[in-house]
Amino acid sequence: MSAWFGPEPTGWRQLLEQTLAEDVGTGDLTAASFSPESSVRWMIEAQSDAVLCGTGFAEALLGASSDGHWLSRKYKDGDRVSAGDIVLEGRNQTSNVLTLERTALNFLMTLSGVATLTGRYVDAVAGLPVRIVDTRKTVPLLRNLQKYAVRCGGGHNHRMGLYDGAMIKDNHIAAHGSISAAVAAVRNTVSHMTKIEVECESAEQVAEAIAARADVVMLDNMSPANMAAIVALHRGETVFEASGGVNLSTVRAIAETGVDVISVGSLTHSAIAASLHMEFK
Amino acid sequence: MSAWFGPEPTGWRQLLEQTLAEDVGTGDLTAASFSPESSVRWMIEAQSDAVLCGTGFAEALLGASSDGHWLSRKYKDGDRVSAGDIVLEGRNQTSNVLTLERTALNFLMTLSGVATLTGRYVDAVAGLPVRIVDTRKTVPLLRNLQKYAVRCGGGHNHRMGLYDGAMIKDNHIAAHGSISAAVAAVRNTVSHMTKIEVECESAEQVAEAIAARADVVMLDNMSPANMAAIVALHRGETVFEASGGVNLSTVRAIAETGVDVISVGSLTHSAIAASLHMEFK
Amino acid sequence: MSAWFGPEPTGWRQLLEQTLAEDVGTGDLTAASFSPESSVRWMIEAQSDAVLCGTGFAEALLGASSDGHWLSRKYKDGDRVSAGDIVLEGRNQTSNVLTLERTALNFLMTLSGVATLTGRYVDAVAGLPVRIVDTRKTVPLLRNLQKYAVRCGGGHNHRMGLYDGAMIKDNHIAAHGSISAAVAAVRNTVSHMTKIEVECESAEQVAEAIAARADVVMLDNMSPANMAAIVALHRGETVFEASGGVNLSTVRAIAETGVDVISVGSLTHSAIAASLHMEFK
Amino acid sequence: MSAWFGPEPTGWRQLLEQTLAEDVGTGDLTAASFSPESSVRWMIEAQSDAVLCGTGFAEALLGASSDGHWLSRKYKDGDRVSAGDIVLEGRNQTSNVLTLERTALNFLMTLSGVATLTGRYVDAVAGLPVRIVDTRKTVPLLRNLQKYAVRCGGGHNHRMGLYDGAMIKDNHIAAHGSISAAVAAVRNTVSHMTKIEVECESAEQVAEAIAARADVVMLDNMSPANMAAIVALHRGETVFEASGGVNLSTVRAIAETGVDVISVGSLTHSAIAASLHMEFK
Amino acid sequence: MSAWFGPEPTGWRQLLEQTLAEDVGTGDLTAASFSPESSVRWMIEAQSDAVLCGTGFAEALLGASSDGHWLSRKYKDGDRVSAGDIVLEGRNQTSNVLTLERTALNFLMTLSGVATLTGRYVDAVAGLPVRIVDTRKTVPLLRNLQKYAVRCGGGHNHRMGLYDGAMIKDNHIAAHGSISAAVAAVRNTVSHMTKIEVECESAEQVAEAIAARADVVMLDNMSPANMAAIVALHRGETVFEASGGVNLSTVRAIAETGVDVISVGSLTHSAIAASLHMEFK
Amino acid sequence: MSAWFGPEPTGWRQLLEQTLAEDVGTGDLTAASFSPESSVRWMIEAQSDAVLCGTGFAEALLGASSDGHWLSRKYKDGDRVSAGDIVLEGRNQTSNVLTLERTALNFLMTLSGVATLTGRYVDAVAGLPVRIVDTRKTVPLLRNLQKYAVRCGGGHNHRMGLYDGAMIKDNHIAAHGSISAAVAAVRNTVSHMTKIEVECESAEQVAEAIAARADVVMLDNMSPANMAAIVALHRGETVFEASGGVNLSTVRAIAETGVDVISVGSLTHSAIAASLHMEFK
Repeated sequence: MSAWFGPEPTGWRQLLEQTLAEDVGTGDLTAASFSPESSVRWMIEAQSDAVLCGTGFAEALLGASSDGHWLSRKYKDGDRVSAGDIVLEGRNQTSNVLTLERTALNFLMTLSGVATLTGRYVDAVAGLPVRIVDTRKTVPLLRNLQKYAVRCGGGHNHRMGLYDGAMIKDNHIAAHGSISAAVAAVRNTVSHMTKIEVECESAEQVAEAIAARADVVMLDNMSPANMAAIVALHRGETVFEASGGVNLSTVRAIAETGVDVISVGSLTHSAIAASLHMEFK
Repeated sequence: MSAWFGPEPTGWRQLLEQTLAEDVGTGDLTAASFSPESSVRWMIEAQSDAVLCGTGFAEALLGASSDGHWLSRKYKDGDRVSAGDIVLEGRNQTSNVLTLERTALNFLMTLSGVATLTGRYVDAVAGLPVRIVDTRKTVPLLRNLQKYAVRCGGGHNHRMGLYDGAMIKDNHIAAHGSISAAVAAVRNTVSHMTKIEVECESAEQVAEAIAARADVVMLDNMSPANMAAIVALHRGETVFEASGGVNLSTVRAIAETGVDVISVGSLTHSAIAASLHMEFK
Repeated sequence: MSAWFGPEPTGWRQLLEQTLAEDVGTGDLTAASFSPESSVRWMIEAQSDAVLCGTGFAEALLGASSDGHWLSRKYKDGDRVSAGDIVLEGRNQTSNVLTLERTALNFLMTLSGVATLTGRYVDAVAGLPVRIVDTRKTVPLLRNLQKYAVRCGGGHNHRMGLYDGAMIKDNHIAAHGSISAAVAAVRNTVSHMTKIEVECESAEQVAEAIAARADVVMLDNMSPANMAAIVALHRGETVFEASGGVNLSTVRAIAETGVDVISVGSLTHSAIAASLHMEFK
Repeated sequence: MSAWFGPEPTGWRQLLEQTLAEDVGTGDLTAASFSPESSVRWMIEAQSDAVLCGTGFAEALLGASSDGHWLSRKYKDGDRVSAGDIVLEGRNQTSNVLTLERTALNFLMTLSGVATLTGRYVDAVAGLPVRIVDTRKTVPLLRNLQKYAVRCGGGHNHRMGLYDGAMIKDNHIAAHGSISAAVAAVRNTVSHMTKIEVECESAEQVAEAIAARADVVMLDNMSPANMAAIVALHRGETVFEASGGVNLSTVRAIAETGVDVISVGSLTHSAIAASLHMEFK
Repeated sequence: MSAWFGPEPTGWRQLLEQTLAEDVGTGDLTAASFSPESSVRWMIEAQSDAVLCGTGFAEALLGASSDGHWLSRKYKDGDRVSAGDIVLEGRNQTSNVLTLERTALNFLMTLSGVATLTGRYVDAVAGLPVRIVDTRKTVPLLRNLQKYAVRCGGGHNHRMGLYDGAMIKDNHIAAHGSISAAVAAVRNTVSHMTKIEVECESAEQVAEAIAARADVVMLDNMSPANMAAIVALHRGETVFEASGGVNLSTVRAIAETGVDVISVGSLTHSAIAASLHMEFK
Repeated sequence: MSAWFGPEPTGWRQLLEQTLAEDVGTGDLTAASFSPESSVRWMIEAQSDAVLCGTGFAEALLGASSDGHWLSRKYKDGDRVSAGDIVLEGRNQTSNVLTLERTALNFLMTLSGVATLTGRYVDAVAGLPVRIVDTRKTVPLLRNLQKYAVRCGGGHNHRMGLYDGAMIKDNHIAAHGSISAAVAAVRNTVSHMTKIEVECESAEQVAEAIAARADVVMLDNMSPANMAAIVALHRGETVFEASGGVNLSTVRAIAETGVDVISVGSLTHSAIAASLHMEFK
């Protein structure tokens, strides 16, 4: 049983050390008062229902460092936990646990917050053939970790950044004179392994994008009725992504239009922290 | 008029470059389709009421890079803006603006979210002699930036981390046998420039902490009535910090107990993003 | 006129500083013998026909640093130059020029070597609707720069790495039992913006990959005749990439099979340096 | 039996991580489809005769990470292998092997290419009392690794950079008015542990350099006959280095002139990759 | 028994690697002449009386790396040793020991120098209720390590830097018009966890600072008689720090004035190295 | 007039930023109380006679940042100054000057301390044909800067580290059986540009080292009489370096033995800080 949901998010160790340095700085002024022999029995407990994410950070921080110390993981990333569940527990040097507790919890709370919110969107479209995906509206420095948390919550990822997918917006279209010209220009420079998405605001634009063989068509801020009509007209001709105006009240109606993908910015820019804390026995 | 509210948060340039690298990676696949001569007139607009924070990032990213390019700041960090207000505007190379837009907005949205939430707490205690302060429950990697955002929102900072203030909790007390022994042990190792705070859960503990000359006493998860009684009993003998159970409904009642400081974890772990977007003319 | 062929390869400044540090270490022992006032008129000359790449590095190193110093670029990245052509020339502080000369030339020689070899492959398929693309067989640490050099030489890029495209090989197929199962499993985890390529060694595998809607099909080490037959059978159903056994003698015959893309490992793992040197007047 | 030929090239681990990051980026999109329990039996095979270099990188990447995994090295850096020889083999987690294969091979192919080319020059002067040495014409970022590969191939190193040896060229001579003045000026500033080499283009310059007690005299682009005459005249008075016009056809004649050292730029700027690939059982 | 006196100084491993890189650079040219099987029995011996500091660095460098190698620590940081005492001893690979010896000794000599000088000041005030503390006058890059050495020598730390304590000097007072205005302005911006110190040059300033509730008052370059009078007048009202004109001849008289803290710049800017060397058996 | 004595010590900017970060951390708590418009007229004054070193750091920190700000350098690195001399002066933003003052002074005091001590040794051997050189006994992290300071003080450098010169000690001799065998083994592996020094403890060892063509012979802890006899016997056959027992009382007698080089560890491990401070007008 691995701490990570699928492959580890690359770069996580460096982010962990950078985060720890933020908190510890030149040293934990209070921890010095404990004897190095003192150990403590600790538990991390969920205080509300959540989809778990970030246990790998907690495990790396609080894992056993010498004889008599241990760590036991009860749940792993992607698991759904309820208020009162013990997520991780163990025994370790008292001063170490107190120094590392906050960093471990900050990762767990932040990332489980994203996973939990994603899980609510995924639940809302249960049974429908649609993906909930994230956007590039992420918290600075947390792109890779938040996208991992979205996967833990049952969502999928949109492109990771500007480098692994092309997105043609109105500015690009204006610069090239037409959607077909813009798609052709971009296709000419990008790899044959790069997909091209076109942001469309009308049925006419959608038709033009499909004619230009756009790999993905974004239906930008359209009403469910409009989206349903467009999807019905072009079923199987491209991949449709709905974007804009998505919240927990509207997402199911949007999913029912038949779009393949719904992108939700708030998954990563406005998730509130999951409640977890540490208890000592 | 500087972009920053007081001194710049140290380290911000490195965090900016690290964040930009997350998004741009090996290059913006779509931007290559613009001529280097093409320029665009852009505006960043608030889409809801907010306390602004992060304009220094936007200015560093979108500032003029050659003749004919310009940037004009209409509001600065700490200013309150309303939906529809133009925060920053300018003209710059089209491909640059499109490449940098998302990173600039992600900083603005994340940090203004924290400043805006702080502003709501500060408003809630208006007229009372109390500080709203943050905690160490921050989003990983954003400690310094979020604490800056709290200041922009009218709040104050608690200690930055484990290294610039001592906090004695129940574990420390248990390890040393009593509050007075714990305070003495910590005082013996820390600098004469370090303040010592003691977490107290009862009136008895408060009395003991004050007798031990604790610089700050935290009233942990107490009812307003209990806090008011304790503060009345010990007025002027130490600095009182209320912690636990603080939200926008309860904060004024807590402030009215006479405590000096109210610490609020959600300022930094659960602020939702402020709404800002970029428009082109 | 910019030094770069399209957008700058991201990260180039850090690579430049790291490379300069390799050579200069704790200081140029010989350069100290020149007066700081001494300046020198320098030229970088091509000693053989080449497609130029890396002038941005030379410009960053040798550009004017004070009054009376200047740099003039005669050719830019992507230009074809002949033996004897002056590529860049200028005047600068003598000790600086001598200290930086080798680093500037090492970038120019290495990257122009890749661009020049790419240009020969591109010439060899002139007039045919096919792309010459690189692979992941790059010199360690030079992935991004070599891929840029391929573009300068008229080629296109394959995926940049393991993160911006999926490639299903025989191991993946074996692990999942069939091409269709492997494609389905990969599609289920990757973004809707990710293309999936399948390595095929027979016409049967090609048919199965196309049935599984592979975005790209690699024809691995097949004879031109086999490739031509396969392409004829499935024209328009996917993108065909020829791989294996490609050299300057075979590439045109391979291109004539009708494949869309030919990938060539030697572009980046076995290009010899272009000849350029610095002269002083 | 160590993976390295003599001491490890310092800094190799950082270069390995930087190189791996180039390829893996935000994660291997295809590897996620394997179960973590799946393991694979792999072999790295030479596909042509070569002098091996870089096995330490392959071992660090593919070494056993858990029970049941193993790695066995059949040859070490500096060994000569033939087409078909198995260089390294082992068993490891399938997804890991597929993710790391290309980085391991890229190091092996690049560095064995340099060692193999060096070996051919060393063979060409077999039996003669002369060293084949490299130059500063190295591939950016690979200075230390390529110099290590030259040693693996039986060659020796020239100075590593501008900091560990002084080289007086025509510009330095012109700046100081004479070879003797230039040598004196440089000797006055450098350490008593620093050797001074003088580039000479005529017998007269050689005589002047020797009179100035140059530690090493470079015979720059001279004919073998001229070099032989100069060496005969000054035998034992300094160390002679031949430079310019060196290739596999000319190197033995140059060695027979009696020079002590022959420097060859192409060892490091124009070695083609050695052929090695990975096979699975 | 830990190598460190209390918690490890954070960041020490990175400083160790950076320091080792200074010395080893591209490799130890002389070490290559030993067989990897050769091992050596080494001892680090004190050559003069000293307070030890830095054994953690020596242990990290010279600790056992394979079977048959060992390291034994005889003294730990903070211990007082006499000339001839063996501090650490062990057996390790000969080439490793010779490569690492100088870096290990440089840390031990530099840090033990600071600890030893601190110990002499602490001895000089033995029996008096006063702390010897350091200042910000530290050797560049060694702030954290030197402050750790001061603690090893029996001293205490002043603030670590500009970020963990506020210090009001004459410029601040002039800018705000009065001590009370300056203290109020600073208190308004800093955390409730931050102490404020005021530099005073007269009894009047001291009275004003105490009235403004300064946490610490610095008596700057005052005579012992003046300090004694001031302390007597304000006993218990603040913390008094003596600064200026402190040396081993004057420190006891200063301590006898009743000040709480004496800060000594020379502890960190002018400690001479302790004498330690390595012997082989 | 440049701030640096000869070429800048490479890497100084990174060391400056790292040092500044030590002091400023998360921000200067006290500086926030100044208006950004407030400027101050500052001077850095020598408080004792010294050889100056480090003005480049001060200039980089305190140089003019906007209109009305200025910096004027009165002395440069390597100059001898007397108590009371103004070294640098200028006008700059008050909060900036106060934040940067200590870092600037710490560099100046530390490096001028080394230069000043070197100058005293150089003065002590005035008129004799001998070099005062440093050793590898440097303060951690300051190798390159301290070696630069030695040059500013009129001394010369020994090798910079283990990588730019070979030193054969008793362990190497024992491992190879004889001095001649050890020299031959080392010469066989190092570059033809590398000098080899042999540590000798007797006249017999010196004779053997010279017979083995050692480039430099170290006379280790010998009496002046012994050194004089050895130098007389072997004049012109190698370079002689005296080491051990060197202090300001003994150095002239050692120089009079005729050795070429005297190495002095205390230059870099035990220099006390030069006295400089900042004044405001």
